[in-house]
Amino acid sequence: MSHKQYIRLGAIIQGASGNMSAWRHPDAVADASINIQFCQQLAQKAEQAKFDFLFVADGLFITEKSIPHFLNRFEPITLLSALSLVTQKIGLVATLSTSYSEPFTVARQFASLDHLSGGRAGWNVVTSPLEGSAKNFSRDKHPEHDERYRIASEYVSVVKGLWDSWEKDAFVRDKASGEFFAADKLHTLNHHGKYFSVQGPLNVGRSPQGRPVVFQAGASDQGKAFAAEAADAIYTRQETPELAREFRDDVRRQLVENGRDAGDIRVFQGISVIIGDTVTDAERQYQETAQLVTLKSALDYLGRYFEHYDFSQHDPDAPFPDIGDLGQNSFRSTTDEIKRNALERGLTLRQAALEAATPRPTFFGTAEDIADGLEHWFTSGATDGFIVRGGTPTAFDDFVETVIPLLQQRGLYRTEYEGETLRENLGLREPENQFAAEAALA
Amino acid sequence: MSHKQYIRLGAIIQGASGNMSAWRHPDAVADASINIQFCQQLAQKAEQAKFDFLFVADGLFITEKSIPHFLNRFEPITLLSALSLVTQKIGLVATLSTSYSEPFTVARQFASLDHLSGGRAGWNVVTSPLEGSAKNFSRDKHPEHDERYRIASEYVSVVKGLWDSWEKDAFVRDKASGEFFAADKLHTLNHHGKYFSVQGPLNVGRSPQGRPVVFQAGASDQGKAFAAEAADAIYTRQETPELAREFRDDVRRQLVENGRDAGDIRVFQGISVIIGDTVTDAERQYQETAQLVTLKSALDYLGRYFEHYDFSQHDPDAPFPDIGDLGQNSFRSTTDEIKRNALERGLTLRQAALEAATPRPTFFGTAEDIADGLEHWFTSGATDGFIVRGGTPTAFDDFVETVIPLLQQRGLYRTEYEGETLRENLGLREPENQFAAEAALA
Repeated sequence: MSHKQYIRLGAIIQGASGNMSAWRHPDAVADASINIQFCQQLAQKAEQAKFDFLFVADGLFITEKSIPHFLNRFEPITLLSALSLVTQKIGLVATLSTSYSEPFTVARQFASLDHLSGGRAGWNVVTSPLEGSAKNFSRDKHPEHDERYRIASEYVSVVKGLWDSWEKDAFVRDKASGEFFAADKLHTLNHHGKYFSVQGPLNVGRSPQGRPVVFQAGASDQGKAFAAEAADAIYTRQETPELAREFRDDVRRQLVENGRDAGDIRVFQGISVIIGDTVTDAERQYQETAQLVTLKSALDYLGRYFEHYDFSQHDPDAPFPDIGDLGQNSFRSTTDEIKRNALERGLTLRQAALEAATPRPTFFGTAEDIADGLEHWFTSGATDGFIVRGGTPTAFDDFVETVIPLLQQRGLYRTEYEGETLRENLGLREPENQFAAEAALA
Repeated sequence: MSHKQYIRLGAIIQGASGNMSAWRHPDAVADASINIQFCQQLAQKAEQAKFDFLFVADGLFITEKSIPHFLNRFEPITLLSALSLVTQKIGLVATLSTSYSEPFTVARQFASLDHLSGGRAGWNVVTSPLEGSAKNFSRDKHPEHDERYRIASEYVSVVKGLWDSWEKDAFVRDKASGEFFAADKLHTLNHHGKYFSVQGPLNVGRSPQGRPVVFQAGASDQGKAFAAEAADAIYTRQETPELAREFRDDVRRQLVENGRDAGDIRVFQGISVIIGDTVTDAERQYQETAQLVTLKSALDYLGRYFEHYDFSQHDPDAPFPDIGDLGQNSFRSTTDEIKRNALERGLTLRQAALEAATPRPTFFGTAEDIADGLEHWFTSGATDGFIVRGGTPTAFDDFVETVIPLLQQRGLYRTEYEGETLRENLGLREPENQFAAEAALA
């Protein structure tokens, strides 16, 4: 059996891996989130295993109750720029919010990262779920959920316009004549929209892969619509292969409605993994890491999704409290799920908090079990690939050493990178320059 | 004779080196400004020569008339982050404007670069001289010169406040007890000022060198006053050692007036160099590079300082035209100097434009001549050091190979790095955490 498409894989760089208290694990690098040796080793390990990309999440607001590895961590653009010269093939995907930044700066930084890395940059567009972010950015209030997506939509179109400032072969650099660039291949954006006015041109030449790859993370309807309009890849987390297939089919249908090809997007499921010699061994590993989380830490963790609500004021052994609409303007899909789950299963606050803080990994068992699961999700059309997070501090290594070889044996995964750029490795077309296309039509 | 202090040296990374048309030189790497191999080699060469730091300038607005190496260049933060893992000791100083960015983001990116590099980050604070920058950042107008410095002053105090969010030993990471950080070593800024409201804390721990080193560039009175208040280093360009000594004495006096020690700042002269086997050979090299600049390019170059004024509408062989106050809100000290010089010496527009576009290097002649010059400026108290730019594409290599060894033989320059961090190598004290200091007083 031959596979035209391989499973696509991203690797998350985020702290020591595992739950919020996994830094306490005997095998954990406790300062992983700010330890460049740790990050470099992880990056190189992922590259040896032929992962498509590294993926770095982000956040713009902390309090003393935030998850430990959020308190002190590298900023994504700087981290991935640093890793660009100590890796050769792996993609570098950084999360950056459209709610608290300037399109000109963001277009520049990603274009620059793309040149530094020879075409391996990706931008995971988020709109900042955390209400508190406004307080760090001189704003009166956090824009509401739908408004954030309207801002994001205009923002990304501005960034793409800036990325199209120069055509691919604009810089001729003819020493004899003194012509540095071809004047007809420079395009000035002159954007004047509802939220942004950006003249351009960008002071970085066209990206080696045309444009950096645009990811979108966020499973709300607005997020999905935005992805169908503007993204090359989408990051989601669905509970079952059936739900995931529904999600993917819906996104692909919306792409077609927008005049794009269904194949112009890659859908990724965010998953965590724990791999044991046996299922019992995997369960032992899960329990060992779960037990590092105290009730206090779990309540703090839960509160973060609900606008930093203080759950410790409630009896932990009473039913999950009614806290109204808190969180609707931040982590909407996550808070809905937590409340629905607690209500349907009659969970106490303690149970709900510990469950939320120590989620069971999506893929759990022996390496064969996990390879079977990934194969099932992939071949049934539930997803194009996975963004993998270790469920314990050693699980990512286990995945690389035991699951990757099985996927390769089954012909489901590459043994060599196909291309040089992230776009090539993801099998995505290089986008046309919108201005060159206009000129060709004129 | 023993020198307690060595000459401090920075190396500029900016295009192929030399004037705006030096990319046409037979020895030039024409795409140097966007060529990471070129930048990496330059960085490693500067580190082998024990330079204190690399220095990357910046700009936020281009037009088709901008200098070629400004049209398509790396963004400074991403470039220096990339170089952080392929260098070990050299400082990494990036220019970033306080007029079009957010203090929280800038504090994060520099703190992150400092962690990536083990304490080698520096921030060259500028206020954006180019009027056009406003058009790329959704602003109605560019803030006027003095206002920009008032913004910068508040901005830098916010950034320093964020850098003090965590005390040096705040992160205890005790696996047994589960204590990740000491609560009394976390400080939330809660800044509410005229221009910015920033709550904090920063989500990056204290910088390995306390705080990244703050440079200030800009020789106006406001710039100097700002440096005396907030900077660890200052970048200037003075014509003569006498003027430079006056400048340095004035800055140091202002430091003392602000309650700081005169030795708490390092003054750097920006210089260009051309080194020949003989003076005649140096002159030949200068002419060879100067002749690459056409009149049209020179007029475009001149226009950039005067709000992109179109000088080509004037007769090039008539006296330098009266164009009123153009440029007063952008490159004030430079435009004043160009006009004064043209008037006093009765230059034509052609002469003024070509002089401006092909300035004679500050240090010119044999390696001995240049070493003598640097020694004189340094020992006479005109400067603490120099930020060196090659006056031709090969001049920086010549400097490293011929001038550095002479300075070392004379005991004026280090043969090994003294410390690990930029602050240590510049002989600057590690700053106290303002909140820890307050707590100690209370």
